[in-house]
Amino acid sequence: MVTIKDIANRLGISVSTVSKGLNGASDISEDLRQMVLDTAVEMGYQSKKMKKDENKKLCLFIENMEYETANQFGYEIILGFRQAAFRNGWSVSVVPVTPAFQMTEKYDTYMLKNGYSGGFLVGFALHDDWMRQLAFTSIPTVLFDNYIKKNPHVCYVGTDNFEGIESAIDHLYQLGHKKIAFLNGSLYSMVSEKRYQAYLDAMKSHNLPVEEDMVAHGYYVADSAKYHVPNFLAAGATAILCGNDLIASGVITECRLRGFSVPDDISVVGFDDLPISSFLEPPLTTVRQERTELGKCGYAALSNLINHVSVSMTLLRPQLITRASTAPCAEREEEAEEEE
Amino acid sequence: MVTIKDIANRLGISVSTVSKGLNGASDISEDLRQMVLDTAVEMGYQSKKMKKDENKKLCLFIENMEYETANQFGYEIILGFRQAAFRNGWSVSVVPVTPAFQMTEKYDTYMLKNGYSGGFLVGFALHDDWMRQLAFTSIPTVLFDNYIKKNPHVCYVGTDNFEGIESAIDHLYQLGHKKIAFLNGSLYSMVSEKRYQAYLDAMKSHNLPVEEDMVAHGYYVADSAKYHVPNFLAAGATAILCGNDLIASGVITECRLRGFSVPDDISVVGFDDLPISSFLEPPLTTVRQERTELGKCGYAALSNLINHVSVSMTLLRPQLITRASTAPCAEREEEAEEEE
Repeated sequence: MVTIKDIANRLGISVSTVSKGLNGASDISEDLRQMVLDTAVEMGYQSKKMKKDENKKLCLFIENMEYETANQFGYEIILGFRQAAFRNGWSVSVVPVTPAFQMTEKYDTYMLKNGYSGGFLVGFALHDDWMRQLAFTSIPTVLFDNYIKKNPHVCYVGTDNFEGIESAIDHLYQLGHKKIAFLNGSLYSMVSEKRYQAYLDAMKSHNLPVEEDMVAHGYYVADSAKYHVPNFLAAGATAILCGNDLIASGVITECRLRGFSVPDDISVVGFDDLPISSFLEPPLTTVRQERTELGKCGYAALSNLINHVSVSMTLLRPQLITRASTAPCAEREEEAEEEE
Repeated sequence: MVTIKDIANRLGISVSTVSKGLNGASDISEDLRQMVLDTAVEMGYQSKKMKKDENKKLCLFIENMEYETANQFGYEIILGFRQAAFRNGWSVSVVPVTPAFQMTEKYDTYMLKNGYSGGFLVGFALHDDWMRQLAFTSIPTVLFDNYIKKNPHVCYVGTDNFEGIESAIDHLYQLGHKKIAFLNGSLYSMVSEKRYQAYLDAMKSHNLPVEEDMVAHGYYVADSAKYHVPNFLAAGATAILCGNDLIASGVITECRLRGFSVPDDISVVGFDDLPISSFLEPPLTTVRQERTELGKCGYAALSNLINHVSVSMTLLRPQLITRASTAPCAEREEEAEEEE
């Protein structure tokens, strides 16, 4: 079990300073206090006060997403949510759910019987049972990357997918790419739908043609690549935009297996900026989602709903991180040489 | 000048309690502290500490919008923003601007030379000079009802216009109206564009035809009605949806002048739920925007930007307030009688 001493050792400060930070004493700086609180959450510290205070409980449900280790997508979302909640005196339960669980347990009933004041749902699919129930829930609920119409108790938090995809296409366009394939994630996911629409919009705004054999839906895993990359290569793609970084890692592998060099023959762009992105060979150009901030915004939105402020949607800006997996389009360079 | 005694008198509490609230003492309840702070802002109280602390200054710019009295649209937006800012130790200057001012003063320069850490811009038009400059500003800036693409230092806060218009059309549809005219506000305004698009979407989703002589852009004032209502009536409208409550008040007057009763002959719906809405004759059915909360969300977004969290957009849910200006469609009742 994590003690105050452990936190003090990690931060290299005294036990009494940690104690002051945890108890909100006014004779340490606000920055130091925040650092103590954030570190306490990161290390899994639980105060006696929190264990006693049964009334301030939030629940984070997670499905279809890995989150146990720091290199997985859900990890920092959960961390950011728990850090922000902790600062405001809430304890957070993290509950993994399955479709079967959702069929046997009604969302509202589960929340009420466990005394949760609000829920943060991460990784749910459009056809999940709870998604249908959320149209009518009166429990303050925030969804990461899902949107429920009209219900004033439900808010959507996510990254602006349109700006993310647009910035990726624009980057490839500036490098001379015109045949840009798109290997998307799962169907039945709101972000897949938005990213697909964003791809169509961005191609159109750059006057690039969208060809049917240049677009495919797979799953948000590396393995998706082997079923679709051969078609993209056959169709003459010079760049492949991917629904997330895991797909992109598979695409790079698949291109190499088939004798295509990344980025010399094919440019590859991911989405998310997972920690692995910078360790891939070549390091991956990708659209960054600020996951810790997404978690914190999730808490802020939930806090609003609990206080009867009906926030409907909060979006964060994505950021294009340019690394070595993208390069000027080979065809274009040849053309340039011919012109000389 | 407002003193601590004035605040104590207004709230019916002691001067020492007000003082504790203003100074963040821990021996009064959080609710009471918030009430003291909010009332202090509402009454225009300024502490010596705030006057001294030159480093924590925000600026709220306002254009094309009335805000001096409690019945005007901008009043509560400014109040909510100032209340939230005050709780966090910021002082707020409210600066009315004109297009001419924007041409002579560059936004960034103005902010820097006056020492403002961030700006909240309310009521600006798409073609304003500062709107173009905001594409490139590095000053944390929140826009009420305007959106700037891609710049991570700028955020948009507003009410979800699509849900607002959809709920109004749905209400009229349930009452049997099919010929629903739309008298929108000014062109060159982002919300006018969104509300127009929302009107088209909602008519389509209800299988209602959109006729050219049933849609007009005017200005966000009552006077707009007289130029367009005659055409709507001639075209057979049974309901008129308005871009805001002021337009709706003009529409009610104009209908009456022409011998049409509201709601017996024509149903009228506004947007905003200004305080006057419930005093109109008949009281106005309208789409409510929670203006105090919009101001508070504006502060929250600005605070995020100042802390380098790139929030792109925060939307609040609208709420349809049903009053006496809407009623079942007269034609439908006649049909029903014929059927009997």
